[in-house]
Amino acid sequence: MSTSAMPDGTNYIALTIEMLAERLSSVPAVAERVGADSGSWSVREVGDGNLNLVFIVEGSAGTVVVKQALPYVRLVGESWPLPLTRAFFEYHALTRQAARDPGRVPEIFHYDAEQALIVMEFLTPHTILRGKLIAGDKIEDLGGVLGRFCARTAFRSSDLHMPTAERKADAALFLANVDLCAITEDLVFTDPYFEAELNHHTDGLDPVVAKLRGDVAMKAEAQHMLTKFASNAETLAHGDLHTGSVMCTATETMVIDPEFAVYAPMGFDIGMLIANFLMAFFSQPAHRDADDLKAYQDWIMEVTAEVWSSFEVEFRHLWATERSGILYPKTMFEDQGHSSEGALNDKLAMILEDAIGVCGIEMHRRILSLAHNAEFETIEDTGVRAPLEARCLMMGRALILDRATITSLDTVLAMARSMNEEQVL
Amino acid sequence: MSTSAMPDGTNYIALTIEMLAERLSSVPAVAERVGADSGSWSVREVGDGNLNLVFIVEGSAGTVVVKQALPYVRLVGESWPLPLTRAFFEYHALTRQAARDPGRVPEIFHYDAEQALIVMEFLTPHTILRGKLIAGDKIEDLGGVLGRFCARTAFRSSDLHMPTAERKADAALFLANVDLCAITEDLVFTDPYFEAELNHHTDGLDPVVAKLRGDVAMKAEAQHMLTKFASNAETLAHGDLHTGSVMCTATETMVIDPEFAVYAPMGFDIGMLIANFLMAFFSQPAHRDADDLKAYQDWIMEVTAEVWSSFEVEFRHLWATERSGILYPKTMFEDQGHSSEGALNDKLAMILEDAIGVCGIEMHRRILSLAHNAEFETIEDTGVRAPLEARCLMMGRALILDRATITSLDTVLAMARSMNEEQVL
Repeated sequence: MSTSAMPDGTNYIALTIEMLAERLSSVPAVAERVGADSGSWSVREVGDGNLNLVFIVEGSAGTVVVKQALPYVRLVGESWPLPLTRAFFEYHALTRQAARDPGRVPEIFHYDAEQALIVMEFLTPHTILRGKLIAGDKIEDLGGVLGRFCARTAFRSSDLHMPTAERKADAALFLANVDLCAITEDLVFTDPYFEAELNHHTDGLDPVVAKLRGDVAMKAEAQHMLTKFASNAETLAHGDLHTGSVMCTATETMVIDPEFAVYAPMGFDIGMLIANFLMAFFSQPAHRDADDLKAYQDWIMEVTAEVWSSFEVEFRHLWATERSGILYPKTMFEDQGHSSEGALNDKLAMILEDAIGVCGIEMHRRILSLAHNAEFETIEDTGVRAPLEARCLMMGRALILDRATITSLDTVLAMARSMNEEQVL
Repeated sequence: MSTSAMPDGTNYIALTIEMLAERLSSVPAVAERVGADSGSWSVREVGDGNLNLVFIVEGSAGTVVVKQALPYVRLVGESWPLPLTRAFFEYHALTRQAARDPGRVPEIFHYDAEQALIVMEFLTPHTILRGKLIAGDKIEDLGGVLGRFCARTAFRSSDLHMPTAERKADAALFLANVDLCAITEDLVFTDPYFEAELNHHTDGLDPVVAKLRGDVAMKAEAQHMLTKFASNAETLAHGDLHTGSVMCTATETMVIDPEFAVYAPMGFDIGMLIANFLMAFFSQPAHRDADDLKAYQDWIMEVTAEVWSSFEVEFRHLWATERSGILYPKTMFEDQGHSSEGALNDKLAMILEDAIGVCGIEMHRRILSLAHNAEFETIEDTGVRAPLEARCLMMGRALILDRATITSLDTVLAMARSMNEEQVL
């Protein structure tokens, strides 16, 4: 089956630990990396995400990860079907990201469209960033790597750089990722703002939730953001770039799991990422001793600042060196002796505005909608959890409402530090 | 050949007057409407546009129009190839417009994808609106019809109304209209702002042209607008809705020629349309006696105001009655006892802002880029023409720069009236 055809599910069989070695031993790319003697492969299932099967397969020659889509949402069960095509979009997103920011996503060894299955590099000793932020670990150049990843993927997938015919064809391809888009459209942008069936939130938050759901102007802003997300195919976004989609060692940072990939506004990924750093920040009082709290929260603030500053530095660099698309062509600016820096400053301001809006929405949906974050879910005492979550909710509201007038990420960080001292509940 | 497959040109043969009857007489839908005796058909070629062959075929039973794409730009010649697929997009746009605003586009009798050919309703005694505006004719409810057309097609092709999976699939289809999009992207948004090869402008305009091309901030704004046009697949736009794409009698208005159809921001069509009314307005001193001038310019202003006011009324009506898509869902607003009127007002303001920006750009490109307008081109004395065009150019600049702060179309019309008194050159 070609990699450009989408699977129809006819011959699909979900893998089990027992059958995996038998089914994959005949694939040369796999046997080569794990070892020819498939009888001695050790297989474990480690999928802790919301959607897929994930196996780690270890043998005499090495270890690989096997990720297979299920025809439903794992978190919910067979009652919520979800197409196998998400493996197709993940595969295509991974290949594009690998080209645009080499070495930042796992290497793919084998892709089976029909089985909705990707065999890829086993990242070790990497662990999920979200867990590290709960544990209080620090990662070298974390913000720099992630900011540059966002800048490179955003710039190089857009009409600023790509031939527009290619960007249009690619945008058309990813427009078929309808079902995963719908999860973002509904669960991220809409469900938080009314009592949707799949919602849940911590006891004690009701007064703040009522305030948000009664804020008609803010709800309108959230839907203005959804309008942009749903229709603005500016660049190929990862689509789900939170701290659970990042794996790190103390010195290396990798990005995984782009099955929500979608052409979206340039601020989408970085806005969602910043939101997850802010939520890690707000959750810290439940995870740190008083002695360590301030220092680690300061570190998270530094990383968050670095995400944006490295994005901006890299974006400016790419603007100067790789602006070969139809937008802001040099024929209109530099070739006329005119600087395009004003246009670039405008563009960065628009990206920041979108990012801040998405950030606010992500902070709401992770507390009010279906999928919550471990940094709050692991706080067992809801009397501790609710006030910390309440700060996130009020911060998110301010970001959504004020995004057009916030002109720097420093302002956002100052708002977070100030909110961190407030008793919202 | 199915209507959803795009032609590859293998068996394409351009029609001539001589061969037309023979080639189309075997098509029942054509023979039925023109007459079985194809030997007595009268055929004339009337294509006065920039791109295609257009034949009028008359017989004992009636008359039809046969429109066939050429594999190049007619205005330029074979040196500028342009794919036959534009007939495919015109066909699909016409069927969608017919569903969304019934009776406002010509009925299609036959579509031949391979021959890039559409046989459609012959509009009679309709003539092109642009000519009527030069001649000083008035058309009943012109602004009302066009404003409602823009509102219905914009609303009903968007995520405000359509199931988003359908809108996404349709947006993906039209993303393949790359070459006609490129004409808009280059010739409308970019070429006016530097000395592009295909540009030409009236002698005497140089000082104003230099002012525009030296205005770096305005050029940046034009490219911000291009960014939106190129990537924001909000709704299926006609894509070329100027007064040459409208045919009228004294009492009926029809919209033709949507081969530039593209998913674009909602303000695109109406902005381009308003620009063409403003250009008709500014050209009037060359076409009217002093006695008639003011009254006819006043009428054009009324029509232009009506385009927007009827758009707004119809959009508000559709918002209340047909808002069934994923955006601004009633579950979040009305079902909670919350009005969505604030969101609607915001949305209309954003559409107006985009429309005003597009309007300014259209006023520039029709004077500076490749395709000019008859209302100015027919003014033989360039000493008369240039000062009138200069008013358009300066008005366009003001619209592009101030679009975010102009909050009503009345302000635009007041600006036009004021500019109409100025000696720019």
